[in-house]
Amino acid sequence: MNPFAFWNPTALYYGAGQIEQHLLTEVKKYGSKVLLVYGGGSIKTFGLYDKIVDLLKSGGVTVLEFSGIEPNPRLSTVHKAIELCKKEGVDLLLAVGGGSVLDATKAIAAGVKYDGDVWDFYTRKERPQDALPFGTILTLAATGSEMNSGGVISNWETQEKIGSSSPHTFPKFSFCDAENTFTVSKKQTVYGIVDMFSHVLEAYFSHTTNTFLQERMMESVMQTIIENAPKVLDNPHDFAARETMMYCGTMALNGMISMGVQGDWATHAMEHEVSAIYDIPHGGGLAIIFPHWMNYVVDAGEERFYQMATRVFHIDPTGKTTKQVAQEGIQAVRHFFDSMDAPSTLGDYDIGDKDLDRMAEHAVRVGPVGNYKKLAKEDVAAILRAAL
Amino acid sequence: MNPFAFWNPTALYYGAGQIEQHLLTEVKKYGSKVLLVYGGGSIKTFGLYDKIVDLLKSGGVTVLEFSGIEPNPRLSTVHKAIELCKKEGVDLLLAVGGGSVLDATKAIAAGVKYDGDVWDFYTRKERPQDALPFGTILTLAATGSEMNSGGVISNWETQEKIGSSSPHTFPKFSFCDAENTFTVSKKQTVYGIVDMFSHVLEAYFSHTTNTFLQERMMESVMQTIIENAPKVLDNPHDFAARETMMYCGTMALNGMISMGVQGDWATHAMEHEVSAIYDIPHGGGLAIIFPHWMNYVVDAGEERFYQMATRVFHIDPTGKTTKQVAQEGIQAVRHFFDSMDAPSTLGDYDIGDKDLDRMAEHAVRVGPVGNYKKLAKEDVAAILRAAL
Repeated sequence: MNPFAFWNPTALYYGAGQIEQHLLTEVKKYGSKVLLVYGGGSIKTFGLYDKIVDLLKSGGVTVLEFSGIEPNPRLSTVHKAIELCKKEGVDLLLAVGGGSVLDATKAIAAGVKYDGDVWDFYTRKERPQDALPFGTILTLAATGSEMNSGGVISNWETQEKIGSSSPHTFPKFSFCDAENTFTVSKKQTVYGIVDMFSHVLEAYFSHTTNTFLQERMMESVMQTIIENAPKVLDNPHDFAARETMMYCGTMALNGMISMGVQGDWATHAMEHEVSAIYDIPHGGGLAIIFPHWMNYVVDAGEERFYQMATRVFHIDPTGKTTKQVAQEGIQAVRHFFDSMDAPSTLGDYDIGDKDLDRMAEHAVRVGPVGNYKKLAKEDVAAILRAAL
Repeated sequence: MNPFAFWNPTALYYGAGQIEQHLLTEVKKYGSKVLLVYGGGSIKTFGLYDKIVDLLKSGGVTVLEFSGIEPNPRLSTVHKAIELCKKEGVDLLLAVGGGSVLDATKAIAAGVKYDGDVWDFYTRKERPQDALPFGTILTLAATGSEMNSGGVISNWETQEKIGSSSPHTFPKFSFCDAENTFTVSKKQTVYGIVDMFSHVLEAYFSHTTNTFLQERMMESVMQTIIENAPKVLDNPHDFAARETMMYCGTMALNGMISMGVQGDWATHAMEHEVSAIYDIPHGGGLAIIFPHWMNYVVDAGEERFYQMATRVFHIDPTGKTTKQVAQEGIQAVRHFFDSMDAPSTLGDYDIGDKDLDRMAEHAVRVGPVGNYKKLAKEDVAAILRAAL
């Protein structure tokens, strides 16, 4: 493994009844004026909004609101929330939603404590030096944002979608009650599953040596996702299945399974280019691109693909070459995504080759992307073309 | 899984060069007067002591010392260190050693901030409300104390060995450089391996349902320990093998693989009784008792033993009953310990049945021990008798 520093100070609460028992105590550690940040208002339809607001108000907490965070959260929206926080002197943010709401909240938290434009953190012009404290209540199993310091923001003006992270933007606390994911649509559930599975793949395809335990832990998450996916999709109100999926999402990207591992992350970089222009769901984009990335880079290390094929998908390697098994592994990933009706071509989102060159160009703006195989502009273009 | 709250704020540093690069910065976050806590002085033989002291002094840090922490760290020693800290006004403790030194440091840290006897925390008379900050530099892969809040102290006067934990006693930072474990003897290395393996077993034998990912992660740690053990024992200077083992030790007991899982912990409780009287190495005691505990409780749930046998030890279940496979699994654990020349009977430490009744009595002083199967006094006595 590579030398590493790991630090993850988020207080993580899982299970039924935890919000009722601990939310107020956690909030009051940081102040008495809270800004509730949420998305399109689905949290009002199943009672979560009322529960939280009633709970906070009963404890003497002043609750302000900021709603309308988009699925690919926009910089312009983040700007508005920052302004509100500065004007109102908010003590704490409380994100209620999925990864987009949480990512937006991280941007707001860092932006409130910065005099310039928060976008500077995403373009790497500056690093956050401080952030407003924030907590989260998760309503979608997917991004792992509830227990990490990263977030992705879309700048619609420049058509850029970029991620950023900072030690200052870990949630102080996160509440994960699987019941709050019961009403997530089948489509959104699938996107979430693809997203968390992809997070593991990004770490798994690595040339870092001496990572025996990390690899096994990643395989554990992948196997559990695969086993659990049909349960969640067949019965969206199955608490145990929803909770297992939520837990897989958290563990896939809280840094624990990938300590000291240099991941790849080219597929995320490529997906960001696509959704920066076409505003497609992140999980949908990943489902399309990942198998094509795999086909393109398999020669850079067939062994890890073989390992995934045999250990995660239990493909029998008898009488087959490493390459054959590796390719069956890639097919198994595609098949897993297909089994959930995830999209498989950019055409599924009516995306043609019009902006392909521009996307490839922007993907490599600071150099080649990926680590398993370094991808130059023409590599990115080739992968996206294969995905058309 | 059970509802759970997880919080682990330790900053974990792994790899070569991390001490040189980050120790001074970490220390200075907490003050400029440090008490170095260590054991018998082995850290002086391979240069670690000099390296740390030089580094701290070069940064203007005042370094005091407290040495002589015993392998089963004693309350009387902890008392002396607390007195020294209070007298000198120490800002921060720096534990350099294995689990015993780290556990003692946790007791010192909590004791300095408490007016009564720190033993109150171990007898559950009081809970720590505060603690002096402390960091650790690990020299033995075993207990996981470098990334958890627990510690075990022996009261030689009352012949009690009891563990305690508190949110206040997480290390602020821990440095794990596998090179600092190169000179650990074969015997101590084996004890460490048995200890970390046992930590996983204690969590693994559980009736908590819906813990698919947690179980797989535990199996990942066990498999990696088993694979890696011969490498470490054959070549104690193999950095990669030593680091993998160190990492297994950390992951076995930092809470990550067992979120929401009710573990058993009867074997640890029984071992503590034995070593409270006979002062035997913890890992040695566990190696003796664990397989006997398994034999005794297997009827309380053969399925998990079957799962361990097939998934961890790859025992072929074809044509065998669940019970047979379960028993082969238990034999495999015994065989794994034997393969490293770990002790297998209490007789190996010249322990007879003299104090057996007294140990069993004390083990259940606050009620039955264990969760996989609740053990009353006569159960404990039967297990210890089988281990004679």
